[in-house]
Amino acid sequence: MVGISRREALGGLASAAALPEAAAAARSTPSIRLRKIATEEAFMVPEFVEPMRAVLAKGGPSLDLPLLKLLYERRSPTAPAPPPGSRDASALQLLPKLLDIGASRLAEMDANGVDMHILSIAMPGPQMFEAAEATSLARVANDRLRSAIDANPKRFAGLACFAPQDPSTAAREMERAMTALKLNGFIVNSHTDNLYLDDERFAPILEAAEALDAPLYIHPRAPSDGMAAPFRDYRLEGATWGYGVEVATHVLRLMMSGTLDRFPKLKIVVGHMGEALPFWLWRLDFMAQPGSRAGRRNKLTPSEYMARNIWITTSGVEDPAALRFCIDKLGADRIMWAIDHPFQPTPPAVRFIETAPLSDSERARIAHRNAEILFKIDPA
Amino acid sequence: MVGISRREALGGLASAAALPEAAAAARSTPSIRLRKIATEEAFMVPEFVEPMRAVLAKGGPSLDLPLLKLLYERRSPTAPAPPPGSRDASALQLLPKLLDIGASRLAEMDANGVDMHILSIAMPGPQMFEAAEATSLARVANDRLRSAIDANPKRFAGLACFAPQDPSTAAREMERAMTALKLNGFIVNSHTDNLYLDDERFAPILEAAEALDAPLYIHPRAPSDGMAAPFRDYRLEGATWGYGVEVATHVLRLMMSGTLDRFPKLKIVVGHMGEALPFWLWRLDFMAQPGSRAGRRNKLTPSEYMARNIWITTSGVEDPAALRFCIDKLGADRIMWAIDHPFQPTPPAVRFIETAPLSDSERARIAHRNAEILFKIDPA
Repeated sequence: MVGISRREALGGLASAAALPEAAAAARSTPSIRLRKIATEEAFMVPEFVEPMRAVLAKGGPSLDLPLLKLLYERRSPTAPAPPPGSRDASALQLLPKLLDIGASRLAEMDANGVDMHILSIAMPGPQMFEAAEATSLARVANDRLRSAIDANPKRFAGLACFAPQDPSTAAREMERAMTALKLNGFIVNSHTDNLYLDDERFAPILEAAEALDAPLYIHPRAPSDGMAAPFRDYRLEGATWGYGVEVATHVLRLMMSGTLDRFPKLKIVVGHMGEALPFWLWRLDFMAQPGSRAGRRNKLTPSEYMARNIWITTSGVEDPAALRFCIDKLGADRIMWAIDHPFQPTPPAVRFIETAPLSDSERARIAHRNAEILFKIDPA
Repeated sequence: MVGISRREALGGLASAAALPEAAAAARSTPSIRLRKIATEEAFMVPEFVEPMRAVLAKGGPSLDLPLLKLLYERRSPTAPAPPPGSRDASALQLLPKLLDIGASRLAEMDANGVDMHILSIAMPGPQMFEAAEATSLARVANDRLRSAIDANPKRFAGLACFAPQDPSTAAREMERAMTALKLNGFIVNSHTDNLYLDDERFAPILEAAEALDAPLYIHPRAPSDGMAAPFRDYRLEGATWGYGVEVATHVLRLMMSGTLDRFPKLKIVVGHMGEALPFWLWRLDFMAQPGSRAGRRNKLTPSEYMARNIWITTSGVEDPAALRFCIDKLGADRIMWAIDHPFQPTPPAVRFIETAPLSDSERARIAHRNAEILFKIDPA
């Protein structure tokens, strides 16, 4: 029997105990620079500004109007200023940041070590314009997006918009965006005229996305008119609450309608840590087994659709606990980093992906590798 | 320096390494029986059945009608049967289970080692009846609840219902329920006539709950008419999706309206693992800082309200990962176990609380201790 000293025994225990912490520290200052591709980054084109003002002038019940008013309305110099530092005050300053897809944006990316923005037209894109105008402005936005990428091909990629108001024309624009413009996927800002993509009229759009093998990012807008009432007070319509409910409801309609069975190869992206769908998965699976209710048409469980059709991003949820939960539920291959520029500040989003307690492999996949694969971006 | 043998050292290491597993095994077969108080357990009284049928006969836009139809409607013998094993089929069998607050329920509790049900009137309680009938039926339900507890005082506790349709009378019934009937708190099934508890007319109800120092369980019902449209298809209105959105929206209205500032001592309970509010907390705090938007009146952050005013239960979410996430966010003192009988089966709910990876202290708090404190139930 070989004796070892108490010190050796304790030393062994102590270093074993210290290991996780040391490893975490090593991870939080990566020796190789981490490529960072941000996947939900908004821009705007000048051609949309006057039509947005026309939407505002027309008014109506849409709960998108409060934010659009802050973004686009010409303010009278005598209008009362919102409290400094509030989100209302910062919303008034957002339009120039959205319109910049050049020098200022690149400078902010450089200052924070962000390699690439995957650009997408800011909410609600062309989806509140009349059909003909929406169709024509979608083309303009996509052309401008291509130009911005051409000017800085290592720094920008982009998701094409389209006008769901005219689905067959939208499908043609989607094809042009992927073949002629070589963009990286599509953005849709949730409902259009209060209809969701499970509506039969939108089938050409889903067919195109599937045929082109291009991901469709379902970005929020405020809840549709038919669910807006309890969100009309206390500014509950936006990023605090309405956006998440709107997009998660959209995704569940695609599942429960059987739409994802008709388009099994669709690749859907949702932001904001999956709009809490990962957290609900146990209950969703329990309650929504195929055939559980007359009127439901899902052939798979929600978990199975999540594993087959859905990717999520971290936009607006810089919470290491929520990220770990989602990795455990969905796997690190289904999660992509995002900043949500300019609605969300860049430095904390960068700190989040640099320092969240992840393995090197998880961090690389979430920071850039999954986006490279899904959006067909050249590895650096 | 005292030498210790390698075997001793390794033995020490081995048992240290084995400790978590051994402890987990020990926990999953606890040597001391775990008291289990289930906190969201539904019952019904026979006096409600005909009025519920009258609600069904009257019809209307309420999205609660599909489930109420399955529960209460007399079925014609020629009606097509839902598929065996589906939730539709099991809903047809629920009414006798709801009406039983005696032998059969106790037998099922005994068979599963459940010590106590905290009973509450099944959704939507009296909240869809005319005001006068609702007020009178709430009294009947509370009296019957008291009788059921008197018959089995170690096995049942109960939450009183009231008729928010007549708030000042409701407040008197709440007082009677706590002082004369000595019940353990209150149940409200989310909105009443499409209004939420932030509405000024309900102030007497919140004053009573606060003055009586009794918790108010906000239980789901289907989304209110003003948010119902996208939930009308594919049976999205219920436990799969609508319920969670409805209750979480209710709680956020209480926060953002400033209602919880006016009633700072309110104790609110929400089920279903907090209706995903814990998962949203990072984003809620970021977006809903006090003063962030004109129109919001919250003086605290959502996290601060969660810590001060909100308790959650595990009803319908038997997911160890979600439970751990909630412990990390809210603390084990804010979480209570529930089965959601008879909507959710008892054996897996029991297995969940017996075997989830928890420390002994966490398990005891979640299984019974927190409920004993909050609902003022005698420790066993």
